[in-house]
Amino acid sequence: MQPSISLSPIAFVKNSRSDMSDDFWGNVVSEITLVDELPAECFDAIDSFSHLEVIYHFNKAEKTMIGSAHPRENAAWPKVGIFAQRKKDRPNHLGLTIVELVKREGRTITVKMLDADDGTPILDIKPVVKEFLPQGDVKQPAWIGELMKDYWK
Amino acid sequence: MQPSISLSPIAFVKNSRSDMSDDFWGNVVSEITLVDELPAECFDAIDSFSHLEVIYHFNKAEKTMIGSAHPRENAAWPKVGIFAQRKKDRPNHLGLTIVELVKREGRTITVKMLDADDGTPILDIKPVVKEFLPQGDVKQPAWIGELMKDYWK
Repeated sequence: MQPSISLSPIAFVKNSRSDMSDDFWGNVVSEITLVDELPAECFDAIDSFSHLEVIYHFNKAEKTMIGSAHPRENAAWPKVGIFAQRKKDRPNHLGLTIVELVKREGRTITVKMLDADDGTPILDIKPVVKEFLPQGDVKQPAWIGELMKDYWK
Repeated sequence: MQPSISLSPIAFVKNSRSDMSDDFWGNVVSEITLVDELPAECFDAIDSFSHLEVIYHFNKAEKTMIGSAHPRENAAWPKVGIFAQRKKDRPNHLGLTIVELVKREGRTITVKMLDADDGTPILDIKPVVKEFLPQGDVKQPAWIGELMKDYWK
């Protein structure tokens, strides 16, 4: 796979997390500040939305898993393909999370529920729009509910 | 902004759309096939999920808007920042959509609700997990409901 698409960070994360641990993200508050090259107007009216989708780069991920494996190396859970799990060690190392917008001040937004470490480069931010949320019931296997047990605590 | 993160397509889209038009995505069925370098196992157990998040590259987008502007150049709607809308002409040209999984066959998945043209490079696929959906009510401004009126028709 030849890298063929070049991206630039549009913002960076500032928060209290730096340990790359998996759980306990529920009380983390993060600031996201635009890079100097982008004007504050990029965030205009963003606070007319309550939630945002944040695409970021797992810049500390050093491995890339392809194929399938047990999530979190837990043999009690089934082997699933890398695109059937949200593990960071994935092709392109992209992270994606829906966050809650607390406030916008100039070129900085403050958000809750962002599961990214301090210093993480952000690649895009989009407003959550109801018409883009899943239509119909969301089906998921039991293992992921177990995996998520302490995630937002 | 110096490009500093290099990504590779993990799959490509095959469908009937090629006109870059904005609306009427509701009946489009797309196939997403892994690139040759990735094994079919990347999709193992993906069909234990009903919905997937697909991150793709707007490879036909030629412009990049920074700052703020009227969505779809419609002066009846307010000027909003590029990160308060989902327009394709954005920094990094990243697209993101929640799709419905129809079936998986080997290295190909068939999905509905993907708003990407034929040939679009896919950068990542993640399962939709209930615990990652918005907590609490989603607030959005009136203009986006108007903009979405014919989107999924």
